Amino acid sequence: AAQRVTRFATTVFSEFSALAAKHGAVNLGQGFPDFDGPDAIKEAAQRAIRDGGNQYAMGAGARELRVAIAEHSARFYGQTVDPDTMVTVTSGATEAILDTLLGLVDPGDEVVAFEPFYDSYDANITFVGATARYVPLRPPDAGHAQWWFDRDEVRAAFGPRTRLLILNTPHNPTGKVFTRDELSFLAELCAEHDVKVLSDEVYEHIVFAPARHLRPATLPGLAERTVTVSSGGKTFSLTGWKVGWVIAPPPLRDAVQRAHQFVTFATAAPLQAAMAAALRLPDAYFDGLAAFYLAKRERLLTGLREAGLTAFTPEGSYFILADIARRGFADDVAFCRHLVSEVGVAAIPPSVFYGPEHRHLGQGLARFAFCKTEAVLDEAVRRLRAGL
Amino acid sequence: AAQRVTRFATTVFSEFSALAAKHGAVNLGQGFPDFDGPDAIKEAAQRAIRDGGNQYAMGAGARELRVAIAEHSARFYGQTVDPDTMVTVTSGATEAILDTLLGLVDPGDEVVAFEPFYDSYDANITFVGATARYVPLRPPDAGHAQWWFDRDEVRAAFGPRTRLLILNTPHNPTGKVFTRDELSFLAELCAEHDVKVLSDEVYEHIVFAPARHLRPATLPGLAERTVTVSSGGKTFSLTGWKVGWVIAPPPLRDAVQRAHQFVTFATAAPLQAAMAAALRLPDAYFDGLAAFYLAKRERLLTGLREAGLTAFTPEGSYFILADIARRGFADDVAFCRHLVSEVGVAAIPPSVFYGPEHRHLGQGLARFAFCKTEAVLDEAVRRLRAGL
Ligand SMILES: CSCCC(=O)C(=O)O
Ligand SMILES: CSCCC(=O)C(=O)O
Repeated sequence: AAQRVTRFATTVFSEFSALAAKHGAVNLGQGFPDFDGPDAIKEAAQRAIRDGGNQYAMGAGARELRVAIAEHSARFYGQTVDPDTMVTVTSGATEAILDTLLGLVDPGDEVVAFEPFYDSYDANITFVGATARYVPLRPPDAGHAQWWFDRDEVRAAFGPRTRLLILNTPHNPTGKVFTRDELSFLAELCAEHDVKVLSDEVYEHIVFAPARHLRPATLPGLAERTVTVSSGGKTFSLTGWKVGWVIAPPPLRDAVQRAHQFVTFATAAPLQAAMAAALRLPDAYFDGLAAFYLAKRERLLTGLREAGLTAFTPEGSYFILADIARRGFADDVAFCRHLVSEVGVAAIPPSVFYGPEHRHLGQGLARFAFCKTEAVLDEAVRRLRAGL
Repeated sequence: AAQRVTRFATTVFSEFSALAAKHGAVNLGQGFPDFDGPDAIKEAAQRAIRDGGNQYAMGAGARELRVAIAEHSARFYGQTVDPDTMVTVTSGATEAILDTLLGLVDPGDEVVAFEPFYDSYDANITFVGATARYVPLRPPDAGHAQWWFDRDEVRAAFGPRTRLLILNTPHNPTGKVFTRDELSFLAELCAEHDVKVLSDEVYEHIVFAPARHLRPATLPGLAERTVTVSSGGKTFSLTGWKVGWVIAPPPLRDAVQRAHQFVTFATAAPLQAAMAAALRLPDAYFDGLAAFYLAKRERLLTGLREAGLTAFTPEGSYFILADIARRGFADDVAFCRHLVSEVGVAAIPPSVFYGPEHRHLGQGLARFAFCKTEAVLDEAVRRLRAGL
């Protein structure tokens, strides 16, 4: 095997989904809904397959979908996107992230990201021969209602070799939604160091008032340097379709597109047609999604607290972090293994989302997904109350 | 942009598909059928979408598809494949090739491949920081009924840093089907230098008797060192679905899988279910496909020759190379640009499939695809006869 892949094992998502199946556990681990998105979207995909949308889409993505992505950006964020020069469709956000790293980062460059991070960031930074500089998000405390970062720590992470900052808002797994003030601080720092930004926004429509999703690319100083990554999987409860996209100013999008053409070349054509229809759903759909998940968040938060866990309230995403350290558990991996095999509930141990230096910060946490039916959430809570 | 992507521009496939559209040309360029595969497969995909196969598939691929891939390997090649430890499903063969390079090749390693090559090989070798050593295939001549290679040139390309040999059989764009004797020679050389093999076999079912597709991984000495890459796009005339796979002995497959999980993570779930059904079609389907394409090959060969071109007869794939140098054309790119804009037929200039050293060998060639309806092939021939 090549050195780059010997550094990591099976993703924690695959590992715990397999463990959940093996032990018949209630699966609040890997983030996928146990229900499907709107029938209208599924019907659009069936029509595309039946009526002959089954040959290679354009490498940059079906034009119909690129136009829908541009319209969606204008509708929700007032962002002006040219579908022909600013969009590339990818096989999920995971591919979009790799394409961005391949397109923008040279070996020896440095990439700044926040911990905990989505695990593919770290692997992809390795793939392109760059070095990661991680800044930990700090949990809510007396002075902070939400997860926060120390601005001096971020400044210290930036240096002459910094090429890219990876943002993720709403943030997996903390549920943090970055504020305008935080983003403005980061924008200035990036401008000062001429650093590009990758903004992973796959949970853009799962945000709970009063929090509001801000698209970093619409902030002063960020438009010209930001690659926005998103996908339809979470917004439309169709995680298995793997249709994602990149939005970026033409020179950055051009670099990403050049990488994309030699990563997957093109994305499943009939699902692109359906995703275009999805992005055109009326506002009511998107509002309804947030309300739908708000009820689930409340249900699981209440349940986790009843089970004696200290749970942080997420502003966005469909994940809740619990502070297991306060309950005396010092090792999240051991805790989650115990939970899945003995208590019958699968959760994700977040320490894998930290670099070696701050791994201990993740060892006191466990991540629970609430993108599940009420019956499943209730059964998980029942088991946690009985077994913890 | 990162250095690695500044080396290349838009793929020639995207470029010439766009030119074909712009000029209203008959498109014999990019290799996609202008007809769809069997309705039964399309119906299976529609059922999977309707009945709820819409969340993340397993990262390694839906088990049902991995089992079907193993059964297909046994049925056609007598190859024993364990679906749980030897298969990874990917978002097309293009991703499978990148995953293999990421999983097996370190920066500074060398990769040997034949020219002309599928263009993503060259880009992917760059992506992993390795160096390509190319050996040209030579056209048929008095001593060779088919494209051939000079064994001394291959020997000379192997050295202490060689890590991987990339094979492609049936070969795009020459149509060459590697013989047992050629593969045995390569097997010995790889064993001697402890070199792994990536065998790209996406045209495995488009082969014309008396040629027969040999799966390199079934040859002595190659089983333990070969990563077989294929996909359903060409075999089932559904190039837009982008479902590919890797078959390899467990240690090699493990390395590829580790890369895959951070390239796309998983592949479109409902299309995997349908691809499993496709691979289980009776022998008659696969025999019929070869016969179907044989008739098209004959039709286009005859037409190209009537238009005054010297066309090489392919043993496999759905491409024909014409020797345009004999007609006095010295630059394939100029020829193909002229062809698409003035004659109204899109073909692919093969010089982009050569490294700088042997580029001139491609400049005397043009590639025509015959995965098109009879009416389209006939119209292309009519235009070529009138315009050349
Ligand atoms: C791509 S698998 C992981 C799904 C997900 O986003 C998560 O569980 O964090
Ligand atoms: C992935 S686009 C190219 C299709 C193809 O295999 C070819 O035309 O050679």
